[in-house]
Amino acid sequence: MTLRELQEIIQATFGSKDARRGVEGTFMWFMEEVGELAAALRAGEDREHLRHEFADVLAWLATLANIAGVDLDEAVEQLYGSGCPKCRCCPCACVAAKP
Amino acid sequence: MTLRELQEIIQATFGSKDARRGVEGTFMWFMEEVGELAAALRAGEDREHLRHEFADVLAWLATLANIAGVDLDEAVEQLYGSGCPKCRCCPCACVAAKP
Repeated sequence: MTLRELQEIIQATFGSKDARRGVEGTFMWFMEEVGELAAALRAGEDREHLRHEFADVLAWLATLANIAGVDLDEAVEQLYGSGCPKCRCCPCACVAAKP
Repeated sequence: MTLRELQEIIQATFGSKDARRGVEGTFMWFMEEVGELAAALRAGEDREHLRHEFADVLAWLATLANIAGVDLDEAVEQLYGSGCPKCRCCPCACVAAKP
């Protein structure tokens, strides 16, 4: 699935509710899912459970991006398409950054 | 860009550092970026700035997924590929859920 397809599915499925809720309310939902991901990772849940929590966080990030008018595909392509955004190397050759 | 391509870029660029750092340390970096996204959304930063923050959050989510052995593409396809995971409709027909 491309990032654009994901944003389109989220928009088609939840777009009208998302627009009514706005950025602040949506951020609260996003954070709830981030918390559930943290709990699942900490507890060492199985792959199926983790997959579910990662999907929810990503779906809510896509929702936020839809509301903010940001194309996630364009965003990651621009920043990470050539490897590390700082040293522009792949693998990253930064010594201090991102330890 | 597909989600799989994103995970591959992140793995090739940062994989060895990410593996050394592990889940807990990586989650701290992820949360730092979530905080920067919150600040940018709250401040109403311009599209270019928001794009940067969304890309960073997504890149760190991909890093976490790499460490946890989760395929984000498979994860969202499974949960959101048919629309709403609860009512299986697109658009979502749930009355109470996800207000």
